[in-house]
Amino acid sequence: MTTVIPTSPSTGTTVDLGPAVALSCRECGNRVALGPFYACTECFGPLEVAYEFTTSGEALREQIEAGPQNIWRYAPLLPVPANIADTPNINPGSTKLVRADNLARELGMKTLWVKDDSGNPTHSFKDRVVAVALAAARELGFTVLACPSTGNLANAVAAAAARAGIRSVVFVPSNLEQQKILTTAAYGGTLIAVEGNYDDINRLAGEIAGEQEDWAFVNVNVRPYYAEGSKTLGYEVAEQLGWRLPQQVVVPIASGAQLVKIDKGFQELVSLGLVDEAPYKVFGAQATGCNPVSTAFKQGHDFIQPVRPDTIAKSLAIGNPADGPYVLDVVNRTGGAIEDVTDEEVIEGIKLLARTEGIFAETAGGVTVATLKKLLASGQLDPNEETVIFNTGDGLKTLDAIAHVVGPSATIAPTLSAFEATGLA
Amino acid sequence: MTTVIPTSPSTGTTVDLGPAVALSCRECGNRVALGPFYACTECFGPLEVAYEFTTSGEALREQIEAGPQNIWRYAPLLPVPANIADTPNINPGSTKLVRADNLARELGMKTLWVKDDSGNPTHSFKDRVVAVALAAARELGFTVLACPSTGNLANAVAAAAARAGIRSVVFVPSNLEQQKILTTAAYGGTLIAVEGNYDDINRLAGEIAGEQEDWAFVNVNVRPYYAEGSKTLGYEVAEQLGWRLPQQVVVPIASGAQLVKIDKGFQELVSLGLVDEAPYKVFGAQATGCNPVSTAFKQGHDFIQPVRPDTIAKSLAIGNPADGPYVLDVVNRTGGAIEDVTDEEVIEGIKLLARTEGIFAETAGGVTVATLKKLLASGQLDPNEETVIFNTGDGLKTLDAIAHVVGPSATIAPTLSAFEATGLA
Ligand SMILES: Cc1ncc(COP(=O)(O)O)c(C=O)c1O
Ligand SMILES: Cc1ncc(COP(=O)(O)O)c(C=O)c1O
Ligand SMILES: [Zn+2]
Ligand SMILES: [Zn+2]
Repeated sequence: MTTVIPTSPSTGTTVDLGPAVALSCRECGNRVALGPFYACTECFGPLEVAYEFTTSGEALREQIEAGPQNIWRYAPLLPVPANIADTPNINPGSTKLVRADNLARELGMKTLWVKDDSGNPTHSFKDRVVAVALAAARELGFTVLACPSTGNLANAVAAAAARAGIRSVVFVPSNLEQQKILTTAAYGGTLIAVEGNYDDINRLAGEIAGEQEDWAFVNVNVRPYYAEGSKTLGYEVAEQLGWRLPQQVVVPIASGAQLVKIDKGFQELVSLGLVDEAPYKVFGAQATGCNPVSTAFKQGHDFIQPVRPDTIAKSLAIGNPADGPYVLDVVNRTGGAIEDVTDEEVIEGIKLLARTEGIFAETAGGVTVATLKKLLASGQLDPNEETVIFNTGDGLKTLDAIAHVVGPSATIAPTLSAFEATGLA
Repeated sequence: MTTVIPTSPSTGTTVDLGPAVALSCRECGNRVALGPFYACTECFGPLEVAYEFTTSGEALREQIEAGPQNIWRYAPLLPVPANIADTPNINPGSTKLVRADNLARELGMKTLWVKDDSGNPTHSFKDRVVAVALAAARELGFTVLACPSTGNLANAVAAAAARAGIRSVVFVPSNLEQQKILTTAAYGGTLIAVEGNYDDINRLAGEIAGEQEDWAFVNVNVRPYYAEGSKTLGYEVAEQLGWRLPQQVVVPIASGAQLVKIDKGFQELVSLGLVDEAPYKVFGAQATGCNPVSTAFKQGHDFIQPVRPDTIAKSLAIGNPADGPYVLDVVNRTGGAIEDVTDEEVIEGIKLLARTEGIFAETAGGVTVATLKKLLASGQLDPNEETVIFNTGDGLKTLDAIAHVVGPSATIAPTLSAFEATGLA
């Protein structure tokens, strides 16, 4: 295909999405012009963004390092206009890569890092994907930002739309954590609670997307752009390590997009000459109450059998994960593995990370820490190789999960003798 | 006084707190060696850290700019050892200064910024003060990190101690927001719920500090070091503006330490030649249900009449604020003002900031936004001068405050027709 200058289907004007030049089918390679498309017209396979990068090597590295302290430092590698940092958005990214020596010691590991994405504006990695989706949605002429969500995405979409000055409409399960509902509602957009699980809501969103042509559902009709935002997790880890790749990463899986894109980010850095090529293994983490990808991995399948989620890790409760097969590809190609952990292990994982590193993760982070522990115990993950785990959300949003297991050590009257009587001095 | 090389009272070894050389009395100027002292032996006035800065001007600016993306870039201006960035701590700071054009437009202002400290590791500015207190406590030979707290400080102390691998003991009101109790408990330290208000707990902490010589109560016996952490808010704002001072700032007041130290930070930058001297006004914000400093300001007093707090802004509910008189000094010296706002106005303030800028603040932030609005309405704050407001905490910790005023727009069955029936399309 020759590169065509894409135009917005709704506005007819030229679409500027930086280095992005087309959408290409992940299954058959068929290419279409940049637009609000997500399924291949030839084979119904998912589309992803194809690029022609104009800089690489030292020049690119310098450009990145001179950029802002947020994901827009990687604008030359994302489907966004070059001036994206100047538009009003919530500027996620540049979160901390925390050296986790206490946790490493407790787990018998040599070098362990926590990429702590709870530091994002709405405290989950979803701010990254939404920021990229918003940029693309604007460029493609959409006027409303929408999503079906297990909670974190709802927060991120409502906040990003508020700051961008556009309407948001988000759909969440009505049984979602109160924290995520209230937080989303605070931003003042439209919030629809749906009596159903995420998979029901996702289906409904697809139907609505077909009717509302001005609505960009970030993870439906602009999903190819949205998903690219997670590449920045890979870029940041590599840059924060001094432009090199870790040997092992552990990533939580819901739809699986994040895991796949972290790997894509690493691959791009290698091919652009920003890091040396080096072997790395990608590990996936799920909750046992929603483990379709883990099950497929263990059974050696290359397809996913959907499940009905039942876990406290609600942000990972996607029973029919769109990127499941690609997760299997990445994990198998790199020699990693996928494990799942019980809700009890999730809670222990949350407490372990908080106690050792002062990082209070949501249930998804508990899944990841617990999975790390399990992979170490089974010998699938090497304690002597440098490892990065991704903490993608914040404990403040899933307090219900720990409300029955933590609390005050004592409740006392405000006197010295009452304190001394506790024996806690 | 000649500079003496201070030694730790508990370990007998030399104390290295960087440029800090002594403690000096804010009332009579009497100086004592660096140590775990907080009240003047001559006049019982509060002690503060005195420095001999070794670099200034261009050299200092370059040193700062080459530093890490957290408060330790200002280590040459803080009472911490020069190698502080290499010790395990939670590295707060370098939070976003958000250009708030939407909010400015809504309020009829020209240039408004929000310094958004909810981006800190435990989502409040308290991570800054605790990080500095921890550094000093370690250097002074303490082995336990403790505090009385209205909630945010408890979170920050428990998290910082966990990461530093030392014990924490925190005291909070038993009627505190469930979010702040659970979050603190998650880190695994000792958490004592006290049946009393903050002022009761503060008194109790003072008594315990007298008995437990290994315990550093961050805001009691190491308070002079602790308070210095808030200078970094002033430094960051000036650096993020391109090394210049804003014309107006609005700061929430509990004890008043933060406001006083932001001013101190600005003053130091001027005297060290990092910013040009320029007039600026410091404004203070309180809740009407706990407004002792606002009342004193309005009555033209130079002392504070303690009050019994009754407000949803629990993190600001200090009825007997230690730094109240110094707040009055700063506000009067700079030509600012202090206002207080009702709980209803606080909630409107939270919603206004969330809706316009996608920043979800805790009640303290609501106090600040609502106070900004009130100061504009009364003509005390100039809409045409460049203004920075400080959002010091996170809405996720005070969800109860908004639970009755926000919620889903609709709850529906998972069908297209149910959605269409809402009229929200
Ligand atoms: C906190 C958190 N972590 C991880 C994930 C998984 O992301 P993905 O759907 O890209 O696999 C989600 C998805 O909602 C999430 O909210
Ligand atoms: C969120 C928040 N903002 C502001 C303050 C006020 O700080 P200060 O006591 O230094 O006046 C506090 C104190 O607890 C707080 O928690
Ligand atoms: Zn195809
Ligand atoms: Zn004195």
